[in-house]
Amino acid sequence: MRVLGLHHVAFAHGADHGPLEALRTLLGLEVEHSEDGPGFIERMLPTGDCYLQLLEAQGEGVVGRFVERRGSALHHVAFTVEDVDEAVEELAAADVRLVDEEPRPGGMGTRIAFVHPSAFGGLLVELVEEPDRA
Amino acid sequence: MRVLGLHHVAFAHGADHGPLEALRTLLGLEVEHSEDGPGFIERMLPTGDCYLQLLEAQGEGVVGRFVERRGSALHHVAFTVEDVDEAVEELAAADVRLVDEEPRPGGMGTRIAFVHPSAFGGLLVELVEEPDRA
Repeated sequence: MRVLGLHHVAFAHGADHGPLEALRTLLGLEVEHSEDGPGFIERMLPTGDCYLQLLEAQGEGVVGRFVERRGSALHHVAFTVEDVDEAVEELAAADVRLVDEEPRPGGMGTRIAFVHPSAFGGLLVELVEEPDRA
Repeated sequence: MRVLGLHHVAFAHGADHGPLEALRTLLGLEVEHSEDGPGFIERMLPTGDCYLQLLEAQGEGVVGRFVERRGSALHHVAFTVEDVDEAVEELAAADVRLVDEEPRPGGMGTRIAFVHPSAFGGLLVELVEEPDRA
């Protein structure tokens, strides 16, 4: 597979909008895009060539369980790949444990797949294919 | 202050080199630079315009304490700023709690300062000035 770069790094948090406000007022990072996912709201703050993603837990779900267990914390890193189907096939052929055995729709029209954190010693990795490459 | 982009995202881990090896063999990410810090080895793996930084805990220190408490996990995000002295002054003037009240030398000839995680709701932020901008 071809990794083109970092797509985003995700920070999971609860209902407190302090982080969002501080990133805006102190660092000048602004929300460019926001959308609802299952059990979370994701907000994308562009910085250079990639994004800081804020995942706000909303009720039940993986983000809520993470925040309950860990508090607000960095959640995962996402790499842009040229072809997410090819990437997932390659990892499956190498017997790598995947969270998503088939790519699925992600935010902003992307197609994504999460790799199980056991594959990278605890690091949760998401693979992202941008829509214009689809 | 002017934030130019994401410089790196750091993942802290113990003596296990599994993550490093998996990032190389599965994603093609290679170590470009490695150096010792107080209580850790930092390894920089370029990806697109920024780095994934692996912090390997070595004995006593903040990285070791983090890994002991949390296990291997994402540790901080670092943003490139134009002028780290100006950035630190600006934050201090806004009564933001800093880990480093004065910028200090970081890896690869950079100058850095960490902001206290309470400023961003639990997100540990590092500010980095690249050497060629010094």
